[in-house]
Amino acid sequence: MTKVAVILSGCGVFDGAEIFESVLTLLALEHEGCEYQCFAPNIPQYHVINHLTGEVMNETRNVMVEASRIARGKVQDLASANAAEFDAVIVPGGFGAAKNLSDFAFKGADCTVQADVLQFCQAIAAQGKPLGFVCIAPAMIPKIFGEGAKLTIGDDVGTAAAIEQMGGEHVSCPVDSFVVDEERKVVSTPAYMLANKIMDAEAGITKLVKEVVRLARV
Amino acid sequence: MTKVAVILSGCGVFDGAEIFESVLTLLALEHEGCEYQCFAPNIPQYHVINHLTGEVMNETRNVMVEASRIARGKVQDLASANAAEFDAVIVPGGFGAAKNLSDFAFKGADCTVQADVLQFCQAIAAQGKPLGFVCIAPAMIPKIFGEGAKLTIGDDVGTAAAIEQMGGEHVSCPVDSFVVDEERKVVSTPAYMLANKIMDAEAGITKLVKEVVRLARV
Repeated sequence: MTKVAVILSGCGVFDGAEIFESVLTLLALEHEGCEYQCFAPNIPQYHVINHLTGEVMNETRNVMVEASRIARGKVQDLASANAAEFDAVIVPGGFGAAKNLSDFAFKGADCTVQADVLQFCQAIAAQGKPLGFVCIAPAMIPKIFGEGAKLTIGDDVGTAAAIEQMGGEHVSCPVDSFVVDEERKVVSTPAYMLANKIMDAEAGITKLVKEVVRLARV
Repeated sequence: MTKVAVILSGCGVFDGAEIFESVLTLLALEHEGCEYQCFAPNIPQYHVINHLTGEVMNETRNVMVEASRIARGKVQDLASANAAEFDAVIVPGGFGAAKNLSDFAFKGADCTVQADVLQFCQAIAAQGKPLGFVCIAPAMIPKIFGEGAKLTIGDDVGTAAAIEQMGGEHVSCPVDSFVVDEERKVVSTPAYMLANKIMDAEAGITKLVKEVVRLARV
């Protein structure tokens, strides 16, 4: 059975993993007959946002602890993940991907990817296994795969420019589709970079998951 | 267009709304061509659970603020909800339904339903509109509809006994189905009272949503 690692970045679009994207990813993996294990880095969130008001709250929360809300407790420390045990990786979006898994939200093209995320994704890639990135998470692709990787975050001009500056090749893509870099086996889809409804994100994420699983089974 | 109010009880299965059930409900409503608005009571959570360890955390969180993580910020105070503006109500499960929307988790058959939840659900019912309850949320049905209401929480004997003690008629039901009380227009499905996978819950919730929407359009 194809076994997929899913990297969550918290719980909630503005400071963690986008919940719709995370659930749609896991559901699509079930429909494809995959097993999955959720992981998150065991680090503090960059900050905590009141999702009702958009304001920063005077609190600290842990990325792995909050991510475990999505997965009914079943989240493991990404630092302990063994690439040899998985056939593929998928990273849902949400600002957590750009605030906790990387600092792209603050540093743009000068961003770095969180150490556990970088190490695990590069280990998976080194074993010739596919990776999927959703929403803003593809902004990490140039830092993980080096220059020339083809990817999409939808059609946002500023974000695309930052990606090109990092050496990525940005391809515009509608919400119901995905972009695949066949050589690097890396797949991306815009989801809530463009989605207005959960159904919009569902269309692209379902296709991304199918493509990642296809590449894992080649 | 059919407009449905969805009542969330926080964000996370052990102290709030079950995230998979909440997302599956909203997604199914979109697929049925409905509009929806999420609501939550503006009250403190009963407690905060670390979903990784199951332990109570020394924190306080607000049900409405945390529920807004699921709905990307778009949650309104249930106290302000106007029953005349909606064609139906659905209440996803999670322990939040039994800890925040009611105190069924602590008091069983002696439970009471939170005031805003009780008032809004009874106003919807008084207007002859349908309501759907998922997972453990149906335990509130006898307190909302009075004696004789037919409902399911799956097949848990202890929970079913408490429901019968409150005057409800419990009907055992598999995870991929639902129970409908045609007279009261109240629909229920077990979801994560029985589900092992998201797909299991998806099967029952999708059918429950179709049935609630059908009753709203009769």
